[in-house]
Amino acid sequence: VDAWLARWQRACKASAPLRFIDINLRGIGQVMFQDHPLTGALFAAAIAWGSIAAGAPEVLVGGLLGLVVATLAAMRLRVDAAELGAGLYGYNGLLVGMALATFLPPGPTLWFYIALGAVVSVVAMLGTARATRGWQLSALTAPFVIVTWLLLLAAQAFAGADAGGSVAGAPLEPVAAAALDPAGFVAGVLKSISQVFLKANIVAALLFLAGLWVASPAAALFALGGALLAVTSAHLLGAESDLVRAGLLGFSPVLTAVALGTVFYRPGWRVAVYAGLGTLFTVVVQAALNVFFAPLGLPALTAPFVLCTWMFLLPQQAFSDERRGN
Amino acid sequence: VDAWLARWQRACKASAPLRFIDINLRGIGQVMFQDHPLTGALFAAAIAWGSIAAGAPEVLVGGLLGLVVATLAAMRLRVDAAELGAGLYGYNGLLVGMALATFLPPGPTLWFYIALGAVVSVVAMLGTARATRGWQLSALTAPFVIVTWLLLLAAQAFAGADAGGSVAGAPLEPVAAAALDPAGFVAGVLKSISQVFLKANIVAALLFLAGLWVASPAAALFALGGALLAVTSAHLLGAESDLVRAGLLGFSPVLTAVALGTVFYRPGWRVAVYAGLGTLFTVVVQAALNVFFAPLGLPALTAPFVLCTWMFLLPQQAFSDERRGN
Amino acid sequence: VDAWLARWQRACKASAPLRFIDINLRGIGQVMFQDHPLTGALFAAAIAWGSIAAGAPEVLVGGLLGLVVATLAAMRLRVDAAELGAGLYGYNGLLVGMALATFLPPGPTLWFYIALGAVVSVVAMLGTARATRGWQLSALTAPFVIVTWLLLLAAQAFAGADAGGSVAGAPLEPVAAAALDPAGFVAGVLKSISQVFLKANIVAALLFLAGLWVASPAAALFALGGALLAVTSAHLLGAESDLVRAGLLGFSPVLTAVALGTVFYRPGWRVAVYAGLGTLFTVVVQAALNVFFAPLGLPALTAPFVLCTWMFLLPQQAFSDERRGN
Repeated sequence: VDAWLARWQRACKASAPLRFIDINLRGIGQVMFQDHPLTGALFAAAIAWGSIAAGAPEVLVGGLLGLVVATLAAMRLRVDAAELGAGLYGYNGLLVGMALATFLPPGPTLWFYIALGAVVSVVAMLGTARATRGWQLSALTAPFVIVTWLLLLAAQAFAGADAGGSVAGAPLEPVAAAALDPAGFVAGVLKSISQVFLKANIVAALLFLAGLWVASPAAALFALGGALLAVTSAHLLGAESDLVRAGLLGFSPVLTAVALGTVFYRPGWRVAVYAGLGTLFTVVVQAALNVFFAPLGLPALTAPFVLCTWMFLLPQQAFSDERRGN
Repeated sequence: VDAWLARWQRACKASAPLRFIDINLRGIGQVMFQDHPLTGALFAAAIAWGSIAAGAPEVLVGGLLGLVVATLAAMRLRVDAAELGAGLYGYNGLLVGMALATFLPPGPTLWFYIALGAVVSVVAMLGTARATRGWQLSALTAPFVIVTWLLLLAAQAFAGADAGGSVAGAPLEPVAAAALDPAGFVAGVLKSISQVFLKANIVAALLFLAGLWVASPAAALFALGGALLAVTSAHLLGAESDLVRAGLLGFSPVLTAVALGTVFYRPGWRVAVYAGLGTLFTVVVQAALNVFFAPLGLPALTAPFVLCTWMFLLPQQAFSDERRGN
Repeated sequence: VDAWLARWQRACKASAPLRFIDINLRGIGQVMFQDHPLTGALFAAAIAWGSIAAGAPEVLVGGLLGLVVATLAAMRLRVDAAELGAGLYGYNGLLVGMALATFLPPGPTLWFYIALGAVVSVVAMLGTARATRGWQLSALTAPFVIVTWLLLLAAQAFAGADAGGSVAGAPLEPVAAAALDPAGFVAGVLKSISQVFLKANIVAALLFLAGLWVASPAAALFALGGALLAVTSAHLLGAESDLVRAGLLGFSPVLTAVALGTVFYRPGWRVAVYAGLGTLFTVVVQAALNVFFAPLGLPALTAPFVLCTWMFLLPQQAFSDERRGN
């Protein structure tokens, strides 16, 4: 892998189009914090597989459109070259595109929304990064969440873009949690990983895990561990089994586990326990925001991950030894 | 105009009552960022005309009460003398008074609410200014929005002040956008300007434009351009024509256009494109907040302007050349 | 009292178990800002009396569980020793435990929620303290409010923990305020104090006042004055008499009065007027948040106190003479 990576980087230096592809691949990898083109390529394959298997190729197209528009907008806005090269201005645009294509019907309005949302996601990324810098926090996926919420809400007021069904529509009433059979449990764990990219697909989940492993085996392990903890605890707390089985209560916890366990703190036992606590509380926040947004027909997206990770990153003094430099 | 202004300032220096009137006129002008007594006088005439033409003189009275109470409260709270003299502690009180008189029925409770809200708007102004200083942001109309939301919500719990009809009550359901005839288009553009002061009145709009022109021709042009962009894009996105025609989707975008285009950045092509993007996104946020607050019967007020302008002001590094000193 | 306190502190130094009890007693006192073990003991007696008189001993047990778990979690998270010793990491856990036991039915899920919420309240305390330090604000009860809201919302999505009746359920519609007889007025004033600990009990209120008096007579007077102002103004504004009589519109104002009048500013006439204004506006915010959260069946808890006290603490320059060192 390392030899391949070195050759790829030499090729990118020599060719502007390859360099642009590299930036966008890294942007895909950054959805799960990985600055690695091969991770991005495996993630892209997973998105393609998941979208086409679900009969929704517009989600793939929307994601790519959002990614490319965001990268181009970042260039026009003169962002930091190193951050741009690491894909930090692309992942929010990718997620905006995939989410809008998932929750709104296809049509000219959808493509306009995706382009607008992708551009604004760069503005929001610059703004969130600046607003949180004083607390040494990262923007995470907050720009994606804010911009997508606003566009989805606005779509309800505009005849041009009727909102379709919403992920959060279901869990309005507490229901008796049905039994969760072993197959459902395994499906729930894997789909918790693929739902980070809004897909309930086991093949895609394996591709995502492979992509993580290429860049960081620890990240792959924490993603799997976070998914296991999320599905187990959601089921024991009495969550609706349909939601658990589809991975809909697990994708934010997976991101929290990777972020707290490997990105911002150095892996270790003390950090693992703390990351586990943060992951567990992310399950609670996911359920809470589902209830909060249900009357508005709005999905919680990855807001539970953003809120919990910020909450668990602020008390840095408790982990001064384990804190990473970035 | 300049000679008149110099004579007026000399007269104010010599007379405390004139000085007090000057502060309050500038407070009216500051709703659209203009520190100019003549702008304030023209705006005051527009408010008077709009209120009386709508058969609602209590809106004029409420606004003046809020303005004067806020200015007096600021004096008691020992605010910075230069900021006080520029009218920066009056405009939120003016808007609180006009909004409460628009959305609540007249009566003793209304006047008490306006006085309380005006005083608290000064506290909120000091607090918002301090909270946002680290990011080099201004308080904008955030104090007005927060204080008015809280008082309008509380009024629903208090028998003393039944909430009347609300601006945001309408756009709950997506509707087929009817055709927008040229007369409706022009009315929508002008009323987008007068709705900054909660009035749908074309004569008032022309007075507001005249008041802007006196202090800053660029501000008048950006206000008009912002209104054009807002009405056009809201219509093309499929917004309800009644809302477009009444200027109800355009007043926050007008403020964003003036703020981004002329107040915080220096006018120019690059800034104009950026301000246009911010103005366009303010239309989206206006529609989004209308949907969000509809179940509560709460108007969005100028919150879309505040949120978008803050979002588009935070990424300063992208506009370091065009940034103004203030 | 002073001699007793000196003897107690000597005993604590010699005995680790006594020291642990001391920290937890101070944690109880910190709900109303008092770093005093005798205050904590009197508050504990009030909680016990109020819980048992209401036939809800689980509220007492839940509170003590939350308190002890939070204190132990703070020790594991290596918090500042002086802050730990002053009880600053216990009061949010106590309130989380009491609130969850009040609003959720007893059972294994409840105890798990309380333990989880207490641990997370320490993380949230560290985070809020760090987030607000730049503005020289304190965390107040924000950690309790945030964690409890999230757990109560999540409980609606989990079959394991049906949410019971909610405090905020009532005030959806404006009602004609019935007459408030003198007995109801006195009950409302005293219960406004005991509701700080979620109890409507007059004996408990007297014990709370005694506990305050032991540590700070000024705090006891401001608590009583805040309760009088809250009940009077809520009634005059037309609030529902049942809410006023039960102290449900007064507990946040009581906390605001003590915080602004005695904790963060030095008592005096100018400060008293300012604290009175903040207390009055807290009544408005309490009513506003009741309306805002009613559709979600969520209680406002002490959020009105946190929001108003932060709002009225930010403009420090206006009170530079009266500002306390902490």
